[in-house]
Amino acid sequence: MSTHPAKPSMRDSLVAAAFQLFLERGYEQTTVDDIVKTAGVGRRSFFRYFPSKEDVVFPDHEQCLADMTEFLAASADTDDPMARVCDAARLVMRMYAENPTFSVQRYRLTREVAGLRTYELSVVWRYEKTLGDYLRSRFADRRDGTLRANVVAAAVVAAHNHALRHWLRSGGEGDPLAEVDRALEFVRDTWRPDGAAAETPAEEAEDVVVVITKRSTPMWRVVREVESSLGEG
Amino acid sequence: MSTHPAKPSMRDSLVAAAFQLFLERGYEQTTVDDIVKTAGVGRRSFFRYFPSKEDVVFPDHEQCLADMTEFLAASADTDDPMARVCDAARLVMRMYAENPTFSVQRYRLTREVAGLRTYELSVVWRYEKTLGDYLRSRFADRRDGTLRANVVAAAVVAAHNHALRHWLRSGGEGDPLAEVDRALEFVRDTWRPDGAAAETPAEEAEDVVVVITKRSTPMWRVVREVESSLGEG
Repeated sequence: MSTHPAKPSMRDSLVAAAFQLFLERGYEQTTVDDIVKTAGVGRRSFFRYFPSKEDVVFPDHEQCLADMTEFLAASADTDDPMARVCDAARLVMRMYAENPTFSVQRYRLTREVAGLRTYELSVVWRYEKTLGDYLRSRFADRRDGTLRANVVAAAVVAAHNHALRHWLRSGGEGDPLAEVDRALEFVRDTWRPDGAAAETPAEEAEDVVVVITKRSTPMWRVVREVESSLGEG
Repeated sequence: MSTHPAKPSMRDSLVAAAFQLFLERGYEQTTVDDIVKTAGVGRRSFFRYFPSKEDVVFPDHEQCLADMTEFLAASADTDDPMARVCDAARLVMRMYAENPTFSVQRYRLTREVAGLRTYELSVVWRYEKTLGDYLRSRFADRRDGTLRANVVAAAVVAAHNHALRHWLRSGGEGDPLAEVDRALEFVRDTWRPDGAAAETPAEEAEDVVVVITKRSTPMWRVVREVESSLGEG
């Protein structure tokens, strides 16, 4: 029995070696041969884990896509599809948040290397497609179901990426999960089930009070509601 | 003076030669040398117009991106930003609609060649960024302006691409401009100007009154606003 701490897997070692070299000498200047030499493994080991040098930059997306697909497949028909896709998007943010240093390093790398930007776009597209596939099946009864599914999936991805980019640009400061919650809340508010409009936009809670009332509500009840919302009641 | 019909430009000839070869022998099997030979021009002429073989597949996007940027830059502050980005998206659909045969051929090619799919994603991303940049400046006064701009830009692009894909899959049948109008209308309905979607959902306008007010607003003003909204003031 060994008393050593858990050894990193060969896959982890390859990722670590690759990023060490990317940061030291640049992505373009690093070859797969350099990576395997630094990691102390054979060239074939690299390609067992990663089809190309680009793939080692995004080692967790395949697993995360698989997790997202599984999570959505496990949905019940009674689940609110909007809540479900927002939770699915949170899985991605959680992956980034688990390793802020790595996420920020990678972000800087993708800013510099056009090929990685493109690779990232194709990953983002696969997330969007996964969300869209789920929504298309959930919205199948709606006349505008396919269109709605595509637009909502794009909106969820855009909101997620808005929060993600903001966090990465800040160098990984703050709570990315709180940021993504705020951004996804905007999407939730945009498409309330059955047109039940935004009741209290979270991001404006400090400044404004929103009161929604039926036209038939007596005036005294409206006033009381406003007063209690303002904390004056 | 020649009585010949207008000769296609060298650029057009290169595109035509490239597509002829791509269809005959496949994209991967066609080299730039093959293209210039078929077009009867020199290799340097190709690279004067197209940085790479991929670029010849999408010969019109640079111009269309430039047109979109110019169109948005020419906006007045009084223009409804939502209407403006939808009109900007229509410019792209118009480009595809101008040459249905070419558009459908290219669509089939991009389905088959992974590298072209990725190239296309990067073009789509540039359109989304162009729309997003415009919306960010128009929504600059809003607290959630950047997030809103990013989500709306993504939604417009998704709606456009929904209509475009549907038309391309059908082999270029029907009216793509009518299809994109319908898809964009969904986005317009989602975000009415000044966030009116969230504040007074059209389908509930008969039933509810929504009042949004700053916390610091004096109570008497809130009451007056509620009364006037209810039509009792």
